Amino acid sequence: MAEFNVQINQDVVFNHDEALLAKAEANTPAIHKTPVVPAAIVELAPDATKQDGWGTVPAATPIAELDTIGLTRGKSLILDFGDHQVGTFSVDIESVGSPMDAPLYLKLSFAEIPAELAADPADYDGWLSKSWIQDEYVHLDVLPARLELPRRYSFRYVRIEAVDTSLKWAAHFSNPLVMAESAVDMGALTVPELGDPELEAIYRVSAKTLADCMQEVFEDGPKRDRRLWLGDLRLQALANYATFDNVELVKRCLYLFAGMTAEDGRISANVFTKPEPVPDDTFLFEYSLFFTSVLSDLHAAHPDLDLVRELYPVAKKQMDYTLGMVDADGRLVTSDAYPVFVDWSHEFNKDTCGQAETIYVLRQFVELARLVGDADADAYAARLEQMVAYAREQLFVAERGLFVTTGEEFNIASQVWMVLAHVLEGDEARALMERAAAELFPVRGIATPYMYHHVVEALFEAGLAGEATSLMKSYWGKMIALGADTFWEAFDPDKPDFSPYGSPIVNSYCHAWSCTPVYLIHKYLL
Amino acid sequence: MAEFNVQINQDVVFNHDEALLAKAEANTPAIHKTPVVPAAIVELAPDATKQDGWGTVPAATPIAELDTIGLTRGKSLILDFGDHQVGTFSVDIESVGSPMDAPLYLKLSFAEIPAELAADPADYDGWLSKSWIQDEYVHLDVLPARLELPRRYSFRYVRIEAVDTSLKWAAHFSNPLVMAESAVDMGALTVPELGDPELEAIYRVSAKTLADCMQEVFEDGPKRDRRLWLGDLRLQALANYATFDNVELVKRCLYLFAGMTAEDGRISANVFTKPEPVPDDTFLFEYSLFFTSVLSDLHAAHPDLDLVRELYPVAKKQMDYTLGMVDADGRLVTSDAYPVFVDWSHEFNKDTCGQAETIYVLRQFVELARLVGDADADAYAARLEQMVAYAREQLFVAERGLFVTTGEEFNIASQVWMVLAHVLEGDEARALMERAAAELFPVRGIATPYMYHHVVEALFEAGLAGEATSLMKSYWGKMIALGADTFWEAFDPDKPDFSPYGSPIVNSYCHAWSCTPVYLIHKYLL
Repeated sequence: MAEFNVQINQDVVFNHDEALLAKAEANTPAIHKTPVVPAAIVELAPDATKQDGWGTVPAATPIAELDTIGLTRGKSLILDFGDHQVGTFSVDIESVGSPMDAPLYLKLSFAEIPAELAADPADYDGWLSKSWIQDEYVHLDVLPARLELPRRYSFRYVRIEAVDTSLKWAAHFSNPLVMAESAVDMGALTVPELGDPELEAIYRVSAKTLADCMQEVFEDGPKRDRRLWLGDLRLQALANYATFDNVELVKRCLYLFAGMTAEDGRISANVFTKPEPVPDDTFLFEYSLFFTSVLSDLHAAHPDLDLVRELYPVAKKQMDYTLGMVDADGRLVTSDAYPVFVDWSHEFNKDTCGQAETIYVLRQFVELARLVGDADADAYAARLEQMVAYAREQLFVAERGLFVTTGEEFNIASQVWMVLAHVLEGDEARALMERAAAELFPVRGIATPYMYHHVVEALFEAGLAGEATSLMKSYWGKMIALGADTFWEAFDPDKPDFSPYGSPIVNSYCHAWSCTPVYLIHKYLL
Repeated sequence: MAEFNVQINQDVVFNHDEALLAKAEANTPAIHKTPVVPAAIVELAPDATKQDGWGTVPAATPIAELDTIGLTRGKSLILDFGDHQVGTFSVDIESVGSPMDAPLYLKLSFAEIPAELAADPADYDGWLSKSWIQDEYVHLDVLPARLELPRRYSFRYVRIEAVDTSLKWAAHFSNPLVMAESAVDMGALTVPELGDPELEAIYRVSAKTLADCMQEVFEDGPKRDRRLWLGDLRLQALANYATFDNVELVKRCLYLFAGMTAEDGRISANVFTKPEPVPDDTFLFEYSLFFTSVLSDLHAAHPDLDLVRELYPVAKKQMDYTLGMVDADGRLVTSDAYPVFVDWSHEFNKDTCGQAETIYVLRQFVELARLVGDADADAYAARLEQMVAYAREQLFVAERGLFVTTGEEFNIASQVWMVLAHVLEGDEARALMERAAAELFPVRGIATPYMYHHVVEALFEAGLAGEATSLMKSYWGKMIALGADTFWEAFDPDKPDFSPYGSPIVNSYCHAWSCTPVYLIHKYLL
């Protein structure tokens, strides 16, 4: 996730439940720190087969002889750490030549993919903050020194440029080190035998994406927009149960959302945790509603009735707020002030998706209501039936075999979410997805792995495992072919160089909502 | 001083006398730290009366309301600390608006004069290192925070620019603070009653220049080229005796030079002290020789026979090396490999200056030799007489009333140094300087306060106090008229915008060798 429409709602007042926030704090994971040394010194090289047309080639100097390279004004070198890393960077620097008669002025550029190093930050003037560009300028007055940058970066490549030394000496570098950080240990992961190298590669890269996003919260992307988003948490948690299975981190994230709700009861779409927990003033329809899903999924993976009892009231508030938007006929009436997300694209009508998402969550909610013995459980079940009936009777157009939206639009997302919500099941679901595939594939105008995940999952749910696997390979597999070490925030296979922000240097090439193939493979292929 | 010709002599081997270096260390001064708050928020304004055509005007917001200013992408403000400062900078920063959804990316630019802020660092491509430009780029991931920059800057103005925040919040600043650093307390200085506001202003700015250059050594310039140069030390020490009178710092600097001599006995022109004492591989003729002068001047100001005895052998080595360059007739034969400095300009012949400088120093050396009872004292005295005789008989052209150089050149520097060396005295000296003034004034092509100092001192020594004072006012006074808070490294009154480096952003506007008016006023006008 990242903000697709900037909302500013600074007047919203939030409740802070200190008891729940204390539990969030108590579930903060220890961060594993793993030292990583670079694999090679490389140079940028045009490569039409790689993302945005840039790859790397080995430099003339082997990494073992790094310290023989002397940088002077404008000279640079690129370290390749061999895989995507999230962590801090340090390196020894000395001056060689005459005494050091001026400071050393360095520019360090951290990049997840080579194309970022080919882009000029000065050319970027998009709406997303320039502060996300991973460039640092550093003066060192005294050498030798170990440069230890205090910030955490998300990268595979580090370009070290001497903006200037002096005419009398050069800067030499040795012992570069990344201290990689994650709440989980990627080294402990076993990739299952799938008998399909392409799927195994997708699995491995998915898991790496997830691991690098698992920090003190499930981050959105370790490079950019590092906060915790609820809709993304839902997918990350599912991928996590299939792999690292860190339950505490999911609990922490649920407590963070539960501990900070707006006065009207809603959960904001995301929260910040530094210097202290702060809810964002952005609200998205299903990014409140999915609190129920995360809680339900957690209980399914690791039954914990006490936790369900504790957080059920928060889930209920989200459900009640949403049901307040459902009319007497069982139809969700959406609002621009509380937008249904589904995908970044604004090119399709999302009201039918909202109806389906509500049904999807309400189904889980009724189970939780029964679990905790809520007297209102039957009433919720009745609302569920009514909403399903409305969808089947008013939104499903039998002669087309597809669900419609207002404005007589038939889009892929509506069919997908109606299948995921089990409004149609069995043969009906299969027929729907076959019709959707026939009429609405290949998917067009969708650039998020988040939406692709739901398309693939709907295909699996409808019993179309072949089509699902094929789409997974053509989407996530294509990122790997383009050089992905981790999966990306945005990818349109028809326009591989698409950036939602206008430049690769603010793109996030390790983004949580793209980590789901591990979950899909476990659930549907193993 | 700063390097006027870059020398690279990396093969020179230096002796390290640890006992002397330990004494240098023991004489390291405590640094006074003085908190300074800004006087105003200002804006740059074209001003033809100020250096390089830039001044400032008050901004709309008074400094007391600084924290009401919110900076977003590309917006900036300039803090004016009211006078030249050498020290560290810190400021409180908070984000105001929606939660902080991106890092803050700041650029901070420190400037001694407004013109530096008007120049674009990207336009600078001179030979001097770009690393001297006092710009810092800083990312802050979490606000509120107190930004405490670790480096020391030399400046009056700080421009704070938000390279970017985000669309949802602005950066606000409060409690900006400079912790000013000096080995001496400028507040304890009393400006003598001179009955002349212009001279009093020159005195005050001279003393401030000196104080800001007095750190753990007598620095060359606190902005740039912060090391200790021997020729500049000589002038700083004289100005120091007239004002702050910090004897320990002079001793420390003498020990530093004495403790690190080349295998041939020579002292290098300058030394570095971080991370440990290191002599530069640059050698200048009189920047070795003047060791004797600094020692002699110290003993004159604060008699210390033990110190003279201790350091006399080092002085003797310099003198012997120089006398090895003097031929049987008493003529100094100069060498391009060991250049006579006198001034940055390469436009005049310096051999006669070298002859005079040797006489100047040899005169002091003979006194020291007698003081320590060196059996060679009479021999040195004989060499002195011979060199003086050569100068009077071979270099003084009676019919012109001026000293000549090889190539039949008559330049101002030769006359000045012959007077300072007392080759001519009394009426002869007066006549020489009158002739020099008549034929060679106004001074042309000289841009260093170092050379102007010697011209003024020669006028005083020749009994021409009126001309000396007038020149002092027209040179140092003009810098003040152009906005100087401290005196500059380079200033040509005929070309006020002259930069030896091609841009004001690497010029040093607080430079030690320009601090001498306090000494001249004390010695000749009080």
